[in-house]
Amino acid sequence: MAQEGLFITLEGGDGSGKTTVMGRVAAYLQNRSMPYRITREPGGVEIAEKIRSIILDPAHTAMDARTEALLYAAARSQHLAEVVEPALKEGLTVLCDRFIDSSLVYQGYARGLGMEEVYAINRFAVGTRMPDLTFYLDVDPEVGLSRIAANQNREMNRLDMESLDFHQKVREGYQQVIHAYPDRIVVLDANRPVHMVEQDIVRTLEERVLKGF
Amino acid sequence: MAQEGLFITLEGGDGSGKTTVMGRVAAYLQNRSMPYRITREPGGVEIAEKIRSIILDPAHTAMDARTEALLYAAARSQHLAEVVEPALKEGLTVLCDRFIDSSLVYQGYARGLGMEEVYAINRFAVGTRMPDLTFYLDVDPEVGLSRIAANQNREMNRLDMESLDFHQKVREGYQQVIHAYPDRIVVLDANRPVHMVEQDIVRTLEERVLKGF
Repeated sequence: MAQEGLFITLEGGDGSGKTTVMGRVAAYLQNRSMPYRITREPGGVEIAEKIRSIILDPAHTAMDARTEALLYAAARSQHLAEVVEPALKEGLTVLCDRFIDSSLVYQGYARGLGMEEVYAINRFAVGTRMPDLTFYLDVDPEVGLSRIAANQNREMNRLDMESLDFHQKVREGYQQVIHAYPDRIVVLDANRPVHMVEQDIVRTLEERVLKGF
Repeated sequence: MAQEGLFITLEGGDGSGKTTVMGRVAAYLQNRSMPYRITREPGGVEIAEKIRSIILDPAHTAMDARTEALLYAAARSQHLAEVVEPALKEGLTVLCDRFIDSSLVYQGYARGLGMEEVYAINRFAVGTRMPDLTFYLDVDPEVGLSRIAANQNREMNRLDMESLDFHQKVREGYQQVIHAYPDRIVVLDANRPVHMVEQDIVRTLEERVLKGF
């Protein structure tokens, strides 16, 4: 039987460059001939997709915040069972764009449901499976939002500015999660150009692979 | 503003006479001119109905047990927010056929997910809202199953017999829940004819109403 693969997650606010970095990590693994699988929830899993469609249906204005958090946890649990766990057991390194930390931060902290409460339902969803390593791309919300605006070829608008408070809150939430998991989460300064972030990631992966995580 | 209503739940295994007893409790409340609302999950709530349809879809053979438990909790939370809470706040007595205890027993104990684990996600789903009073209709599984067979005008079949173990497990699970909530849960011997069970319920309600629950 193959040795179990590594479970690596990427976390960060909007405009932190997660998608770009994801591609770079994949390229690194490819170069090292480490078989991998890239995924993000709901990951094309039918049951998880159906759960997401309930969450995202704009007609569901009566959706309770707790119901929403439980549905996110349910979709996570299904994606884990159908995609992540089988890939890890095959020996693949799994790279997942957002995981449990996003729920702790967005629903637990930023939306005010309580991080411990949201942790409890996610702990149930993931069982004993936690990431071996998490890269958190830390970006100043103003920098992140201007990057998004730049990508869309427009000035930052009033809505972007209004959401600055929310993004600031998300960043505070991540600080708390990092404090709770200092060994698992590697913080990268994502205000810098992406190639510098990439270098840090590669260095971290080299070190971790050497010391066997 | 109206005084908040009472939240009463009914629990019990198959063939325990829950449905009949529900009607009798309703009749009692009617006679006492106590405004009430009878409900059961998902209670006609659109979001909760959609969640249930994911759970019950026979095509979803890949459904993970944890996903299923989270979906039940999500449907509960939505039914609570849209039906139970508003009714209680209007001052109605709410009678609910099955609630949190059923999840603890069926998914936590009988299906083996762990009662404490299932409690954690349901605690999140219900927040601070627990029933003021719960009637547990305790029936010997053999008695319960023969009642079901009699209702369907047939002998107990091989399948019923095979499920005896599962129903025995459900009963054991309820014993544990009763042990955890001795004040909230009133145990009724439901091996007796339903009119005797009904008398016990009425007596309990009289006592509780007198002492203000």
